[in-house]
Order: sequence, then C-alpha cells, then structure tokens
Amino acid sequence: MSEKPLNVAVVGLGSMGLGMARSLLRAGFDVSGCDLSESARSALADAGGRPEATPRLAARGVAAALIVVVNAAQTEAVLFGEDGVAASLAPGAVIISSATMAPGEAKRFAARAQAAGLLYLDAPISGGSGKAASGELTVMASGAPEAFSAARPLLDAIAARVHELGPDVGIGSSFKIVNQLLAGVHIAAACEAMTFAKSLDLDLARVFEVITQSAGTSWMFENRVPHILEGDYSPRSAVAIFTKDLGIVSDIGRGENFPLPIASAALQIFLATAAAGMARDDDASVARLYAQIAGLELPMPRKETA
Amino acid sequence: MSEKPLNVAVVGLGSMGLGMARSLLRAGFDVSGCDLSESARSALADAGGRPEATPRLAARGVAAALIVVVNAAQTEAVLFGEDGVAASLAPGAVIISSATMAPGEAKRFAARAQAAGLLYLDAPISGGSGKAASGELTVMASGAPEAFSAARPLLDAIAARVHELGPDVGIGSSFKIVNQLLAGVHIAAACEAMTFAKSLDLDLARVFEVITQSAGTSWMFENRVPHILEGDYSPRSAVAIFTKDLGIVSDIGRGENFPLPIASAALQIFLATAAAGMARDDDASVARLYAQIAGLELPMPRKETA
Repeated sequence: MSEKPLNVAVVGLGSMGLGMARSLLRAGFDVSGCDLSESARSALADAGGRPEATPRLAARGVAAALIVVVNAAQTEAVLFGEDGVAASLAPGAVIISSATMAPGEAKRFAARAQAAGLLYLDAPISGGSGKAASGELTVMASGAPEAFSAARPLLDAIAARVHELGPDVGIGSSFKIVNQLLAGVHIAAACEAMTFAKSLDLDLARVFEVITQSAGTSWMFENRVPHILEGDYSPRSAVAIFTKDLGIVSDIGRGENFPLPIASAALQIFLATAAAGMARDDDASVARLYAQIAGLELPMPRKETA
Repeated sequence: MSEKPLNVAVVGLGSMGLGMARSLLRAGFDVSGCDLSESARSALADAGGRPEATPRLAARGVAAALIVVVNAAQTEAVLFGEDGVAASLAPGAVIISSATMAPGEAKRFAARAQAAGLLYLDAPISGGSGKAASGELTVMASGAPEAFSAARPLLDAIAARVHELGPDVGIGSSFKIVNQLLAGVHIAAACEAMTFAKSLDLDLARVFEVITQSAGTSWMFENRVPHILEGDYSPRSAVAIFTKDLGIVSDIGRGENFPLPIASAALQIFLATAAAGMARDDDASVARLYAQIAGLELPMPRKETA
C-alpha cells in the first residue's frame, strides 16, 4: 500500500469494533474511537488507539468513520445525532456502515450522508469476533465507486474477503439479511435436531460426527454444535443478535408482503430462548431451551481442575 | 475380498435400488430383484441381474435381502407379507433394511425377523441416486455383530462410508431421521432465502456465490440452489420424499411429546408445495411455491438449441 494511511474513527468498540480497530492499528492506521463503555475505551487506548468521549470528537477532521454499532437506530444516532460523526468528519470523508439493518434504512442514511458532502459504503460484516480480531472478516459491500476507493485501504486491513455487490446502497444490507435468515434458521434447526437426538437417546458426539459427514450439515451446525457438546454457552454470538437480525428479516418480509414461515419459526424460538433468560448467552442456548422444556440433560461443562 | 460372493435379492428397484443392484453386480454378486414396475425389472435384467415377479421369488434360498422401498408399510409388506422375503430366504440370511422409518418400526421388524431365524440390519442410506449408482452411498447402520458380519461384503459394494452405530436396531433409523430433519429444514430455508432475495431484487447467482462463502451456507443450499438457478426441477429427489420423511419426524415428535417447531414449519411448506401439484418434482420446487405466491419470476431453464 503506497498511500499514506488515512485517519479512521471507529464508533462502537464491542468485540467486533475493537477487533477491527486493532486490525487497523496493526496496519499502520491512526485510529480514534468511542464507545459508551469505559472499559472498551480503555481497551482501545491499551491497543494504541485514541479514545474520545463522543463520535463527534472521535471523527474530528478524520477521513473515514467505521460504524460498528448494533442496529439502524444506533447507527442513525452516531452518524447524525447531536454528537454524531457527520458534524465533524473531514469534507468528502467516507462512512463505512457495518451494522445489520434493513436496506431501506441504509438508503436513507446514504442520502443524508450525501447531503452532508460525505461518501457512504453499505458494508455489513460477517465472521464473528475471532475474524474481526485477525483482520479476516467477510464484508458484503455496496456503494458508489468513490466510496469503495476511499474505503479500500481500511477494508484491506479488516477483511479477508470483500464482496463488491454493486453501486447502490442497500444491496450490501440485503445480502447480509439473506445470510442472517439462513444462519438463524440453521442455528435453530441444529439445536432442535440435537435435542431431538437426545430425546431418542442417541450419543450426541456421534450425531455430530455423522451429521457433519452427511447431507444434513450446515456451517452453523459445524460451528455451534460443539458449544452444546462442551456445555459452553459463553457468548461467542448471543441469542440477542438473532432476535434482532431475524426481527429485521421479519420486518422486511412484512414490509414487502413476503411470507417467511421458516424464518418466523426460528425467530419465535430465539425469542422464547431470550424470554427464558438467555438473551445474552451464546446462541446455541436454543438447545438449552428445548432441553428445559423436555426435561433432557445436555452435556455439562468440563470442570477445570484447580 | 476373499469370501465367495453371496447371492443377494434387491427389493425395490427405483433409482436407489437399481443403482445399488448395479453396484452389487459390478462387485461380482449374483443379484435377483423385484419391483412393481416392469420397466424397473427390465432394467435389472439389462444390467445382468435376475428379475422375479415377487419378493418371495427373488429371495428363494438367497443369503441376503436388501430392502429399498419407500417406507415402513412397504417394508413390512415385502418382508412379512404373503409374498414377502421372510418366507423364502435361506435360514440365517440377513435382511438389510434401508427405507427411512421410525426407530420403533425398525425394532418391530427386527423382532419378527429374529423370530423367523433371520438377521436384521437397520441400515438407512444417504447420498441420492448418483451415489447409489457409483456405489458410494453413506450407510447409517445398527444391529447385531452377526448381522454386520453377514452384510459386510454387500455394504462394501454399495457404500463409500458405513457408520456402525451400535448393536441395537433403531439407532440407525434414529440417526437417519435426525439427518432428514436437518436436510428438510435446510432445503425449505434455502428456497425461502432465495425467493426472499429475489423479492429484494438481488442477483440470485451472486447470492449463491456469496452465501456459499458465508456462515449462512449448508450442504443442501449448495446442492439444491443450482437447480433454482438453472430452472431445472426434474426430480433428483422429489418433494414427496420430504413430505414423507418430515412426516415421520413429526410422528416421532408427537409420540415422544417432543416439540419440533422448525421441522413442522418445513413440513407444512413441503405439503403446500405438494398440494400445489409439485409432489413429484424436485424438492427445490419449494422455491417455485414461494415464487407463485409472491408473483416472482425465477430463472427459466436454458433452451437447448436443436
């Protein structure tokens, strides 16, 4: 990369945002950032970044803002609220928006950004906190060629793969939403199938082994069922992510008059799992809900010896 | 293989049974067989096998019967009906039962086989007609060690992989049922997601490319979505297979008082697709149902030039 690194503000320093900030720092970027959590701000400082109290302060005169908050409402607030980045970014700066949201929201934000003289890339991410930390996310992006050009050095630093999906904002968000529909259904199905197997007295480790070699497998089955087998529900990705994302899927379906019976069944199961007190636990907790209902014993975590 | 090949009777000469019969013939077995369809019987003769009019005639003095009919009721009829194989198999012969069925049915048939002095292997298969033809099926089998020993040369001829799942009949069927739950849900989800993507005006070929590289992918997504992209609904595996198999899943769930909301949603969608006249078409036809409902145009088959 021959260009001089841009300054970049990362707004939202959860496990995804912090991982991306660290990848940018490793790549030589000058990174400011902000988050409501003081410990997240400290973690950015520890990594060599510059924490600020508000998005507006973090983005002052900066050429790019990477927005990694959880939904459209938060994205709108950190972009266009009183303390938002739009008020302080350098003229012509690029906003890279990574929260999962309805494509219509992304279009609305892009129009406001354009009116403020800013570029906007609709750039949802996939891969989880591990890939965020290693700079190997997958980005599903759409936007004007100038937005892609401006964002390119940042994308190279955070992603192993950037799908360039077209010039229209909203396409990136649509692809992400389709992916989340499938991902959510597959997690719910994996949890339903594993607890059903338990109700049939099958050896769950053997079920995992056989299914992962059969036509019934999925990326999510292979990724999440080990959490069940290890009895480990510490959140790699939380139930609340899928009540949110399948909620967006459901909203879009209703908005488009498009029926989504499978995704709706999955949403209801995630809601039931959240209602049972597991919203912040790993999304494989859907299996614990079925087990609770049916009185099944799933594997317990291995005890660490002291 | 040093042993002299067994004679084997193959009952049910659909695309699966005929493929297995051909694999057995290639491996040097002497294969008799029967099917209600005269063209299926002719196909067996063309391949070098010996067609007979009834299961009983096909199994006369034979050491192994491979049962490849569609369900438990047909299995019971061809095993224990008036013209069934149990009346004519050699003493101590092995029955290899491959239809998908409830584990309780498999146990019942095994007990009847034992009472008749026969061995019984609960051996559902996975892999489709292509793998049946090439002798590379996956078999999920359980049964007594003597049944495995007797069946071993046949299994080696028809399968690339044999999961030996325990000594109790019913376990093989249970594994297959868990696989079918996942497979059915994943097909329905793939069809829902692809038509939803179409309703969002996305490029479906691009959706396939991106999803297969993302966390939303599944074996079934990768296998069935090309049928949608090619507009080709000739049955590699028919909708009716999944109304049947998810029906068995549903029956077992009710029998065990185990709730299966995701599998139930998928079953209803397959039933709707069958009700709309597509029971015998490829199971990717679920996408055509959504498209019909929502007035979407899916890809049409490429016209062959004359």
